[in-house]
Amino acid sequence: MMGSALAFPTRENGHEVRLVGTPLDREIIDACRRSGQHPKFDRPFPPGMKYYQFEEWRDAVTGADFVIGGVSSFGVDWFLDEILTELDPSVPVLSVTKGLIDREDGSLISYPDYWSAKLSERGICRKINAIGGPCTSYELVYHDHSEVAFCGEDAAALRMMKETMETSYYHISLTRDVLGLESAVALKNAYALGIAMTIGLVNREHGPEAGLHFNSQAGAFYQATREMTKLLKLQGAEEDSVAIGIGDLYVTVYGGRTRKIGILLGEGKSYDEAMEILNGVTLESLVVSRRVARAIFKKSRQGELDLADFPLLVHVNDVLEQGKDARLPWESFTFDHSF
Amino acid sequence: MMGSALAFPTRENGHEVRLVGTPLDREIIDACRRSGQHPKFDRPFPPGMKYYQFEEWRDAVTGADFVIGGVSSFGVDWFLDEILTELDPSVPVLSVTKGLIDREDGSLISYPDYWSAKLSERGICRKINAIGGPCTSYELVYHDHSEVAFCGEDAAALRMMKETMETSYYHISLTRDVLGLESAVALKNAYALGIAMTIGLVNREHGPEAGLHFNSQAGAFYQATREMTKLLKLQGAEEDSVAIGIGDLYVTVYGGRTRKIGILLGEGKSYDEAMEILNGVTLESLVVSRRVARAIFKKSRQGELDLADFPLLVHVNDVLEQGKDARLPWESFTFDHSF
Repeated sequence: MMGSALAFPTRENGHEVRLVGTPLDREIIDACRRSGQHPKFDRPFPPGMKYYQFEEWRDAVTGADFVIGGVSSFGVDWFLDEILTELDPSVPVLSVTKGLIDREDGSLISYPDYWSAKLSERGICRKINAIGGPCTSYELVYHDHSEVAFCGEDAAALRMMKETMETSYYHISLTRDVLGLESAVALKNAYALGIAMTIGLVNREHGPEAGLHFNSQAGAFYQATREMTKLLKLQGAEEDSVAIGIGDLYVTVYGGRTRKIGILLGEGKSYDEAMEILNGVTLESLVVSRRVARAIFKKSRQGELDLADFPLLVHVNDVLEQGKDARLPWESFTFDHSF
Repeated sequence: MMGSALAFPTRENGHEVRLVGTPLDREIIDACRRSGQHPKFDRPFPPGMKYYQFEEWRDAVTGADFVIGGVSSFGVDWFLDEILTELDPSVPVLSVTKGLIDREDGSLISYPDYWSAKLSERGICRKINAIGGPCTSYELVYHDHSEVAFCGEDAAALRMMKETMETSYYHISLTRDVLGLESAVALKNAYALGIAMTIGLVNREHGPEAGLHFNSQAGAFYQATREMTKLLKLQGAEEDSVAIGIGDLYVTVYGGRTRKIGILLGEGKSYDEAMEILNGVTLESLVVSRRVARAIFKKSRQGELDLADFPLLVHVNDVLEQGKDARLPWESFTFDHSF
């Protein structure tokens, strides 16, 4: 979805854009060829797009200035094996996949770092650039103003990509803080789930006609800001990357499936019931939540952090993993700096 | 409104609560006496409240454990002269008035500090405690979960007040960081105005049927987070106070008149037109925005900060003061840390 959405600013800037589907996207590419429109978007692509089925990907990247990778978290290893290992190392790659990987030692690494390390084992020297920030694909297609950041180690490549893609509505910051930015936009998934739970909890406590109430959402948002700031400092993130993550948290609370499952859990549905209602769709946000929780439990055992500083993240994990009731541990969000 | 709302948790905890109106609240107090309900709230006060007209305030505070002050920014000097100067200095005061005062030297001080200084000139030694945090009066009355912080210099008084007022839905942190907390919850006014403008701007750019779009709101929220974090560091705020301010920003974007005037300005109305539509109501958020802007302009002239770090605050001020078009300077929100 996001890979396709990025075609809009790029093509509107007059660049040739070649959209390649994975083997799972065969029907989408067929539909694009037929109608010039992604079936999930409410408006057509700009004129002049080119569409490719997966088998044609080598034709698509021939002569390309850079490649945008738009797989989901579940396609990270597939993208590594099928594309990154095969692609000419001199062609820059910009990835939109959001997530983190937790390692044995409790550290959390970004997908760009994961890919670079794996490629290095295969004798390939490549750094990957990535996009983070508060930007949903639907809103980008709508031409709503969007603030994002591109991160990577090659300033010249980042600037070339910014120049190619920036428009009157797509605004791009640049940073070398890959781990900080990628951590910020990954962490927001777990926290958006916790905030969305409050919406369902209001329905449970006050009845289905309760409507939206914002004190409890804002209370959870405050705690999410506290915990994300602490975790991102541990990750060595720059202050501006933290702000990008807070903005991303805001947009994630308002859209998509993370909000939906949070509301269902808040209403008192079990994890299994919620997943059944959502037709068993596998959510990236749940994968990220579990990985981050696993990492902070390990860091806590190693004495690197205090779990008491992360009650919302622990709570979200307990709801997902232990079937704990979604009622938030509000008192654990208070502090006492009066002495 | 907030003073009245705080009667709910306090009275529900079994304490005697005496609600005193200012001279402007005569009809409200009459209505409360008649119906046991504040005319602006959708549910009655807990049973057993006592109501007082202004002339009876000395009776109301006799024997009180503490006094909650709920005037608006426009009543700060009135509250100083009529109550704080007259009240027994041994009775603690907790103020809900949100705001800052800019001084000649470009510094921004809290109302508690302003009051203490003025009282000191009058030979009265009193520190004032205050409440900050994401909590609207309507939602508190609704019993939606709310996270707030009480700040002050007297730990024992703060703890007594917390114990008196905390309930299953009203969650209270304590801090000595008076200036940081009060700055955080004051600053959010200007920034909520800037974020709300994006809602009106979407209507202007895409038509009145556009509906809500969250990328642009989140883009402005990201920039607000950046600027608030920077300004609050200059104010010496603790990290937890910043988080309280970000939570307060979230709840302010969603409710009340600050949102309404932001949307009107975003839609292209002039400041005067917007005020006319809102029936000339004087908004505290506008007062605070202007004071903060005045202070940062002064600090900038004194070389203490760089105005380029605060493009959203400068923009909001230009819209209010110079009649500038509300279109946000999106490119000025981007950064380049690629080198």
